Amino acid sequence: MTFDPAQIHLDPADSLPLYQQIERALAAAIESGDLPASTRLPATRPFAKQLGVNRVTVVTAYAELAAEGYIASHVGRGAFVLDRIARAETPLPPSLRQPGDWSAHNFNREMMRLAQRPDIISFAPGMPATDLLPADAYRLALNTVLRRDGPEILQYGLYEGYMPLQDAIVAELAGFGITTGRDRLFLTSGTEQGLALVMRTVLQAGDRVLVEQPTYMHALDLLSGSGIEAHSLPCDDHGPRVDLLAGLLAELRPRLLYLTPTFHNPTGVTMPLERRQYLLRLAAEHDLLLLEDDVYRHLWLDEPPSPPLRALDAADNVIYTNGYSKCLLPGARIGYVVAPARLRARLAAAHQTLDVTPGELHQRALHHYLQGAQFVEHLHRLRAAQKKRRDALIDALATYMPQDCTWSLPGGGLYLWLKLPEDGPSATSLYVHALELGVAFAPGHLFYLNQEPGASHSLRLNFVLHPPAVIADGIRRLGNAWKQAAGNRP
Amino acid sequence: MTFDPAQIHLDPADSLPLYQQIERALAAAIESGDLPASTRLPATRPFAKQLGVNRVTVVTAYAELAAEGYIASHVGRGAFVLDRIARAETPLPPSLRQPGDWSAHNFNREMMRLAQRPDIISFAPGMPATDLLPADAYRLALNTVLRRDGPEILQYGLYEGYMPLQDAIVAELAGFGITTGRDRLFLTSGTEQGLALVMRTVLQAGDRVLVEQPTYMHALDLLSGSGIEAHSLPCDDHGPRVDLLAGLLAELRPRLLYLTPTFHNPTGVTMPLERRQYLLRLAAEHDLLLLEDDVYRHLWLDEPPSPPLRALDAADNVIYTNGYSKCLLPGARIGYVVAPARLRARLAAAHQTLDVTPGELHQRALHHYLQGAQFVEHLHRLRAAQKKRRDALIDALATYMPQDCTWSLPGGGLYLWLKLPEDGPSATSLYVHALELGVAFAPGHLFYLNQEPGASHSLRLNFVLHPPAVIADGIRRLGNAWKQAAGNRP
Repeated sequence: MTFDPAQIHLDPADSLPLYQQIERALAAAIESGDLPASTRLPATRPFAKQLGVNRVTVVTAYAELAAEGYIASHVGRGAFVLDRIARAETPLPPSLRQPGDWSAHNFNREMMRLAQRPDIISFAPGMPATDLLPADAYRLALNTVLRRDGPEILQYGLYEGYMPLQDAIVAELAGFGITTGRDRLFLTSGTEQGLALVMRTVLQAGDRVLVEQPTYMHALDLLSGSGIEAHSLPCDDHGPRVDLLAGLLAELRPRLLYLTPTFHNPTGVTMPLERRQYLLRLAAEHDLLLLEDDVYRHLWLDEPPSPPLRALDAADNVIYTNGYSKCLLPGARIGYVVAPARLRARLAAAHQTLDVTPGELHQRALHHYLQGAQFVEHLHRLRAAQKKRRDALIDALATYMPQDCTWSLPGGGLYLWLKLPEDGPSATSLYVHALELGVAFAPGHLFYLNQEPGASHSLRLNFVLHPPAVIADGIRRLGNAWKQAAGNRP
Repeated sequence: MTFDPAQIHLDPADSLPLYQQIERALAAAIESGDLPASTRLPATRPFAKQLGVNRVTVVTAYAELAAEGYIASHVGRGAFVLDRIARAETPLPPSLRQPGDWSAHNFNREMMRLAQRPDIISFAPGMPATDLLPADAYRLALNTVLRRDGPEILQYGLYEGYMPLQDAIVAELAGFGITTGRDRLFLTSGTEQGLALVMRTVLQAGDRVLVEQPTYMHALDLLSGSGIEAHSLPCDDHGPRVDLLAGLLAELRPRLLYLTPTFHNPTGVTMPLERRQYLLRLAAEHDLLLLEDDVYRHLWLDEPPSPPLRALDAADNVIYTNGYSKCLLPGARIGYVVAPARLRARLAAAHQTLDVTPGELHQRALHHYLQGAQFVEHLHRLRAAQKKRRDALIDALATYMPQDCTWSLPGGGLYLWLKLPEDGPSATSLYVHALELGVAFAPGHLFYLNQEPGASHSLRLNFVLHPPAVIADGIRRLGNAWKQAAGNRP
């Protein structure tokens, strides 16, 4: 062994934590071959003593190296350096190596991790593009309000939220055709907390709800284990099949339908105006609550979408959720719910009990950012960039994927829905080959409540995450992966 | 009328939103007498047209003026200026004017609002002192990580949280005597979300839990309406009466006991070591989970407190929650839960579903802040200042309150518990007089599950919110209020 771990030079004054300094030194030695495959790393206790650090620091460094595929730890035998080939063969943690283990839980977590691996072009995560976030403008906004408001901004805020931000949202909603007051607007720490708030407040064990099939996977998560019975409403190329709805309402008497009528997740489809109107009539007749998830509204590419259900809803049956995570700043975690009058008091009580109001600093910074023209300008730039990315994806699919693939033509949002030929490899077997070739996506079955035909041969592609050239490269890899997977079939 | 509202000069370039400009102009005119009592304000629609603003802007300005007591709106009659006396007589919104309406919900909200009224010295809210927050250091930390990490810091983070912060917390816990790994540590958006996470995951409808009597009011909120049966464990001057516990366990078979053994909210009491050890033995024998709320640990004034239950817990029965809202930064909303091994997997799944991880920006800024010596230095300064404030409160109570009042002698935390003479006015009737004289507190009954003797004649004082001279002034007012209330009794 030409490299002695005990010789690692640690600098407590470095901004990098000690465990990372250890991790990087060892990773560099492994990469350079100074620590060859199968080398046994020193045991954590004496090694920590040699380095003059806490044992937890070394344990953490080893855990990081294991997570990155550099080493493997065996209980009772210690930690060993893996060889390059073994590293390349294990791009996924064990929990995902078997398709049978792919729960939405595990997968969601992995999508976030894959997004941080530079060797994989991932179309999988449900997030906006980092390179298109208005980071500098938001940093300015943060500093402006920090200076303006002083220490008070770091205190607890009011449960209701920061009033000027509420007013700005009320004004923005008026632009969507939605009339509301602050008293019916509930700020939540991200839109997901809004969905959770509504589901906890409005539904109880034994209730039935309808969800679109396919639907947002986190909504399925929220419902599972709650004692609430979820049933699916099939969708076609124009959104939920409202022609089937009257029958389902009579049969099941559901309390609520959760849906994303505009730039749907995962399909990218938008529901036409007539369907919206028909749905609202049915809801009024059957006293059905509609939970409208509208987080993609700002992200139209070709033309502004139809008005939200909430804007067309004379009977006051629509609970509306939206937020700024997809169109502006995921990290600010600012979402909201607009409640029908009859649910206002119950939501207000639950909102305070659950304590889900976003942090005061982000509320004030967002409010400052929303003043003036910069939000409109940001959306303008974002749409131009995302339109190019969507078009690049569609071009690449036509070029590299087999002829009998079909896909949605999203007019906005983040997602395109790809259907593989039914007689070819499934999305999960394609996934294994795709990862080997350095590309990832979200297999369609994750978005299905019931596994029906089509679920296994569909997948979701987030089209905004990469510039056009990278998108083309990723889909080229995906086409090759499909050929490999198809060739491997018995 | 010498003042014409239509002449208000609005400046769209002003950083103040338009509704606030309108509100301030009208408030100034009311204060100066230019708009005398009983003047009818213009109707919102024509007024908005005159000013060239959206009607919502005027409606909002009026709502603000009404909330501040300047005007009253009557449906169908419009808005009128209130006279000074009417304003002085209605310092509280209608929801709180009748003691019977004092739910914890309403009161909590009002405590936050009262804290913003300069004419009232409030000892009521459950928050740390704004003037002692390390605002400048935290602004530096925010800017450092914003520059260091770029736009990525504004993306969604990992569900698990920011790993280096988790490591820093694991290291801090080691200093408390608590051994844990990242896998059993769950970051939550504030400690309250941690309590909610545990209650949702570990308990189900029909379960019984014990809470200290009195206890943290938000814990009672979380339990109410959940179908979980809460029972009270009486407390004395050294914390929960463990001598009564064996009987209660045999009788009720509760699943969990929620408690704050160190610098208790609301009483300020700390449980001695022997009681902790006896409690842990009982818990192990009866398979009772303990939910230990330790958010006041850092705030000791005289000597470091006994180790947390979690550090003494060989049987792994203690769920531990803590955070940085009371000792550092309420607005960063960073709390956490340490789980016993047998609850780890269930908490991990619920943690991801509920999506309660704190925002990435605050996680990274807090991590940066916790490196180096500044946190230790902050705590040092904080303790010195808060010790002076506690001592000032105790001196003032001895000077201004009636002889037969008694109070706890808190060794840390935020609260002192004051018991009024049982044959004098109750805390709620004292409250009404206190507000008139410009002082506020939290009446004791809010912290009680069952209204027992003592609840009505006790109150909580937050001793850290004001400098010593203001504390003395506030308690002087409280003493006068007590005399008024006692004199008013039949």
